[in-house]
Amino acid sequence: MSAKVVAVAGATGVVGRQMLETLEARDFPVARLKPLASERSKGKKVPFKGEMIDVEVLSDDSFDDVDIALFSAGGGTSKRFAPSAAKAGAVVVDNSSAWRMDPEVPLVVPEVNPEAIAKHNGIIANPNCSTIQMVVVLKPLHDAARIRRVVVSTYQAVSGAGIAAITELQEQTKALLEGREYPPKEFPHQIAFNIIPQIPQSDAFVDNGYTTEEMKMVNETKKILGDDNVAVTATTTRVPVITGHSESVNVETERKLTADEARALLAKAPGVVVEDDPAAQRYPLATTAAGKGETFVGRIREDVSHPSALDMWIVSDNLLKGAALNAVQIAEKLF
Amino acid sequence: MSAKVVAVAGATGVVGRQMLETLEARDFPVARLKPLASERSKGKKVPFKGEMIDVEVLSDDSFDDVDIALFSAGGGTSKRFAPSAAKAGAVVVDNSSAWRMDPEVPLVVPEVNPEAIAKHNGIIANPNCSTIQMVVVLKPLHDAARIRRVVVSTYQAVSGAGIAAITELQEQTKALLEGREYPPKEFPHQIAFNIIPQIPQSDAFVDNGYTTEEMKMVNETKKILGDDNVAVTATTTRVPVITGHSESVNVETERKLTADEARALLAKAPGVVVEDDPAAQRYPLATTAAGKGETFVGRIREDVSHPSALDMWIVSDNLLKGAALNAVQIAEKLF
Repeated sequence: MSAKVVAVAGATGVVGRQMLETLEARDFPVARLKPLASERSKGKKVPFKGEMIDVEVLSDDSFDDVDIALFSAGGGTSKRFAPSAAKAGAVVVDNSSAWRMDPEVPLVVPEVNPEAIAKHNGIIANPNCSTIQMVVVLKPLHDAARIRRVVVSTYQAVSGAGIAAITELQEQTKALLEGREYPPKEFPHQIAFNIIPQIPQSDAFVDNGYTTEEMKMVNETKKILGDDNVAVTATTTRVPVITGHSESVNVETERKLTADEARALLAKAPGVVVEDDPAAQRYPLATTAAGKGETFVGRIREDVSHPSALDMWIVSDNLLKGAALNAVQIAEKLF
Repeated sequence: MSAKVVAVAGATGVVGRQMLETLEARDFPVARLKPLASERSKGKKVPFKGEMIDVEVLSDDSFDDVDIALFSAGGGTSKRFAPSAAKAGAVVVDNSSAWRMDPEVPLVVPEVNPEAIAKHNGIIANPNCSTIQMVVVLKPLHDAARIRRVVVSTYQAVSGAGIAAITELQEQTKALLEGREYPPKEFPHQIAFNIIPQIPQSDAFVDNGYTTEEMKMVNETKKILGDDNVAVTATTTRVPVITGHSESVNVETERKLTADEARALLAKAPGVVVEDDPAAQRYPLATTAAGKGETFVGRIREDVSHPSALDMWIVSDNLLKGAALNAVQIAEKLF
């Protein structure tokens, strides 16, 4: 593909930085990089291919010469500026939740539904981090045996909540170990040495008692797999881990899959690494998945409570496959 | 009841200490306390009612004058010494897994199946920590609507693994924050800022791919509820929390329960506190449950993936209701 002008909106955030690193690491053909951010980041520079590049303030006029605009600046910013970018001729790959459930906007995980990319009208949505790593594992199982229902509980790292959230976990942990207090600011409760069953940190709950994060897993999974018959329930929690989301996933299928069959299917699935050797205490871990692009799956076993279900443990880097890498992979597939 | 001679085997361990504190806090009528431990603890003293009491070395002759022997010294010790204690006339309340599935031994949670206590032949088993807090919540739902299946994922605190495990979490966390290495000794992998889907730390896995901890939840739940038709699958994990186990529990029932019905049933259930006000960001947390005797339940909602199921979040102090308190409550009910 010919080199592209690439804008990154939200370039100074946790995911924005990972987008820059991922473009560089994957040798994406960048003719020119346009880091964009809000007024607050005026005067900042970001590193790219050994240079420090000036951050520009995001506006409706930012996209005139842009081929691809990777957005990771929050739902409000995406809602406001993605249409301008698309109108100016850029293709937007948006990491926020703003457009994901819009029927006109493809919601894409390249290993799962790459065919959806072609249907875009200027905006493509990147799914939620916790959904992406689950569906890359579910896809081959669904193709082989039709998934009927998924019960998932998540163990989500704080980096998904941004730089201030990482700092809060680290500083609060340090304070508690030294016997000092450190009241929560970013999170609704203490996150150090605690589990918080609420994501996101504010305005989380919807009328049915689920959080918006949980309903993302319910709805996005159906849309990405292209099958409204896949029923999902989710409980999503924030855990004192910096990077790497873990998920305990129970999968009921129409046709019974043995654990061996599932392992064989997953072993050849794109983007998936089977790490499943309990005797050697080998299974996916946040600490070993962090920094890697693949999704790791292990603890695969036939559910003793159901005639046709599997339990498994899925871990991936929430900033990479869960955000920046998936967005860059979409951009790669675009051309 | 008349005052009793109470032996505590494993009196110097994390749970043993909690047993002493619980006996004192609940004003259990102790005529004389006999703290017992292995050779290693020879010469140690433990605090009880303002005095320091000598620890005696556990032997077959330790129980001649003992009325109640609370055991929390590991499965091997229980297997070896509980029969001697029973033979000497003491009633053993054993916190290990040694006797739990023995058909001659009652497995008791006083709020759930107190009637089983009377059937003892000298030994009564205290269930696994993660099972206890789940069944006190399941019981009223089962009575009202017949539970068919439970899918549970746990978030278990390190104190369940003993004093050295607590130290390892604290010291390893400190080391990592200071940029130092701290290789795991107690746990199979780094526990600081990580999630380990394996409990216990060694010899965890059974042939079907589950861990022994997971199979405890599967089998003990059926025995305590007295119903083999309650199907359970569990994924149990260790999280960087000091005290307080959290559980994400999906419960399928024969008769549909609304979330409101479930909350009403649980509000009057013994030992259970409903903490369920999402709008106020109020739900059970390890940090608020630690040090308390009740089991807390919240995030109760009707499962969007199933016509007759509920999701909920259950938290309790694993050392209290999960171990020491439940054992002392059994002792109280004995007389």
